[in-house]
Amino acid sequence: MQSLRVELGQRSYSIHIGSGIIGDTTFFAPVLSKGPVAIITDTNVAPLYLQALQNTLKALNKDSLVITLPAGEESKSLDNIQLIAGHLLSAGYGRDCTLCALGGGVVGDITGFAAAVYQRGVACVQIPTTLLAMVDSSVGGKTGVNHPLGKNMIGAFYQPRTVIVDTDTLDSLPEREFRSGLAEVIKYGLINDPGFFSWLEDNLDAVLARDTEALAKIIKTSCRDKADVVARDELEGGLRAILNFGHTFGHAIEAASGYGHYLHGEAVAIGMVMAADLSRRLDLLRESEQNRIFKLIKAAGLPTLAPRLETSVYLDFMKVDKKAEGGQIRFILLNSIGNALITGDVPPAAIIQTLQAFMERSA
Amino acid sequence: MQSLRVELGQRSYSIHIGSGIIGDTTFFAPVLSKGPVAIITDTNVAPLYLQALQNTLKALNKDSLVITLPAGEESKSLDNIQLIAGHLLSAGYGRDCTLCALGGGVVGDITGFAAAVYQRGVACVQIPTTLLAMVDSSVGGKTGVNHPLGKNMIGAFYQPRTVIVDTDTLDSLPEREFRSGLAEVIKYGLINDPGFFSWLEDNLDAVLARDTEALAKIIKTSCRDKADVVARDELEGGLRAILNFGHTFGHAIEAASGYGHYLHGEAVAIGMVMAADLSRRLDLLRESEQNRIFKLIKAAGLPTLAPRLETSVYLDFMKVDKKAEGGQIRFILLNSIGNALITGDVPPAAIIQTLQAFMERSA
Repeated sequence: MQSLRVELGQRSYSIHIGSGIIGDTTFFAPVLSKGPVAIITDTNVAPLYLQALQNTLKALNKDSLVITLPAGEESKSLDNIQLIAGHLLSAGYGRDCTLCALGGGVVGDITGFAAAVYQRGVACVQIPTTLLAMVDSSVGGKTGVNHPLGKNMIGAFYQPRTVIVDTDTLDSLPEREFRSGLAEVIKYGLINDPGFFSWLEDNLDAVLARDTEALAKIIKTSCRDKADVVARDELEGGLRAILNFGHTFGHAIEAASGYGHYLHGEAVAIGMVMAADLSRRLDLLRESEQNRIFKLIKAAGLPTLAPRLETSVYLDFMKVDKKAEGGQIRFILLNSIGNALITGDVPPAAIIQTLQAFMERSA
Repeated sequence: MQSLRVELGQRSYSIHIGSGIIGDTTFFAPVLSKGPVAIITDTNVAPLYLQALQNTLKALNKDSLVITLPAGEESKSLDNIQLIAGHLLSAGYGRDCTLCALGGGVVGDITGFAAAVYQRGVACVQIPTTLLAMVDSSVGGKTGVNHPLGKNMIGAFYQPRTVIVDTDTLDSLPEREFRSGLAEVIKYGLINDPGFFSWLEDNLDAVLARDTEALAKIIKTSCRDKADVVARDELEGGLRAILNFGHTFGHAIEAASGYGHYLHGEAVAIGMVMAADLSRRLDLLRESEQNRIFKLIKAAGLPTLAPRLETSVYLDFMKVDKKAEGGQIRFILLNSIGNALITGDVPPAAIIQTLQAFMERSA
C-alpha cells in the first residue's frame, strides 16, 4: 500500500493506492462526514464492486443510499445532477452527508460536481475503477458535466476528501479502456517527467501485462506528477494548463468524430501525436524525440490518426475549447520530452499542416 | 457615492452604492475580464435599466450578449443554467468572459451560479435592482438555483468581482417588494447591530418614504453588517449561520404555503417574529425586547402570521433545511436585540407552541 499527499492548504488530501483497499475501513473512517453516505456508481461497476464498498461502510455503521447511473458519457449531464439531488433530498440528506464516487471518469466527474453544488458543497470521496480515472480525473478537483454544445462546459474545481485507488479493480477493465488510460500516463512523462517516459519505454511490456508492481508504479508516478502541477496551480491560472497536453487537438477530435467514437485517452493519444508534430514543425522539438513519442504511443496500442474531415471543423471546435482566450487557440507544446510550454502564438498554417498529416487517408 | 470592501483574501471585492452609478464606467472598467460580457436580466428589469447598462459597457468597447429570463422564482432552475451556458457557448464565450447580473435576487442567484460553473468559473458583476438583493443576495457569494424538492438546494459559494448598487433603481420597486427587503434590513439590526435596530425604530418613516439619505444608510449598514459576518466565515462553517435568523421558520413557511404566496422577505419577517417568540419561550430573550421586534416588523408593513397548517408540515420542511444536521433542526435565536446564538437544542414542544401562536386563526 502506498499513499501520497496533494498539498492544497485547507483542501489537502491523500491518495491511497493498493490491492483490495476498498475493503479496508482505515482509509474511509477519517474522511467521512458525520451524516449519511451516498454511493454514486454505474451499471457496469455496481455488480463488481458495490457490495465490497457497502460492506466497508456498514462496518463503519454507515448505511448508504445507492444511485446507479447508466454506464457511459451520456450520464454526464445536468439532468443527472438534478436527479442525484432529488434522491439526496428525498432521503433527507443534509450538508453533513458524504458522496462516494465508485466508477470511472464519468462517475467521478458527475459525483464530484454533485458534491460541489449539493447544498453548496458536501464531502466527496473518489474511488476510481479505471486506469484513466485513477491517473487523471480523480486527481486535481476538476469536476463537471457536459453541455449539448461542449464537453465539461459546466463544472467546478472541487477537491475530494480522499482518493482510494484499489488496483484490483483494474482486473476487470477491458483492454481498450486500459490502453486509453495509458495515454494519460504517457502524458505525464511527456510534460514534466522525462525519467518516467524512459521507464515507460523500457517497461511497456510489463505495464501491458498488468504486472502488479508496474501498475502501482505508473499510478503513483502519474498521481504524483499531476499532484505536483495541481498543487502549484489549483485553479488553472497558468501552469496547470500543461496537463491539457494533447487535449486541444484531442477534445476537437472527440467532438468532431462524435463523442463515443474514440475513448477519451484515444483522442488524447492522437492529440499528443499532433502536438508533438506541431512542436517539431515550429522547431521546438527535435525529430528524434518526436519519433520516440510516436513509437511509444503506437506500441501502447493507441491510435495515431484522426478521422478525415475538413480542417475547419477541427479548428472551430478548438476555438470553443476552454483554453481558448478571445478566440485564440492556446496550445501546449513540447521543447523536449519532459518539458512543456503553453502558447497562443501558433501560425494557423502549421496547425492545418499538422491536422492534415494525421488524418486518416480516406473519409 | 459610498464604497465598502468585503475582505476575503484573494476573493475580496468592493460594493459601490450611489445614485445613477449604472451609468458610470468607473466601477466597471477595473473588474471586467478581457473577454466579452453577457448581461443576464429578467422581463421586468430589462425595459427599465438594460439600455443604461449596455451604454456603459459600450463606452468600454464591450458589446454585450443579453439573456432575458422570465421574471419570477421559477426562473431559478438548473434548466436555465443549461440555457445560459448554451447561449454563451453559441456565442463562443470562453473563460475570459464576464457575466453581469442585472435584477433582483433571482437574477443575482442564477447569474452568480452560472458564473461559478460555466467552464468551471468566470467573472461575475452583481447589479442588484431590488432592496432585498442589494442588502442580501448580492453580498456574501451565495449563489444557486432551486430544486423541485427544495429552494436553493443546488448552488455554490462564489464571490462577485464587484457589486454595483444604483439606488435610483429603487424608484421603480413596488411597495410590497420594498417592504419585503426591509425584513432583511431589520434582521441585521437584530443579529448583531443593536444601534442600527434603534436607528430603524427612530427613522422608519423616512425609510418608508424612501428618503435618499435613509436608503443609502440602510443599504450601506446592511451590507457592512453582512460583510463583517461573511468575512469571518465565508463557507458558513459556523458564525455565518446567524444570517439565517428567521430563515428556518421562513423557508418552511415559503415551502409549505407554496412558493410565490409570500415574498421571501415576508416569510422571513414571520420567521423572525417566530424566532423571537421561541427565544422568549426558552428564557433567552426578554418579553419587552420581543415586543419591540414585533412592533417594528408590524410598523414596516410586514406580515406576522403564517398560514394555518398542521405543525408537522412545517416541521418536515424545517428538517430538510440546509441548516439541519442529522435530522436535527438548527435555530438561530436571540439573547437580546443585536446578539444572536445558534443552537440545535430546542425542545420540539416549544417549536410547536411558537408555530401555533403565529398561525392565522382560520384555515
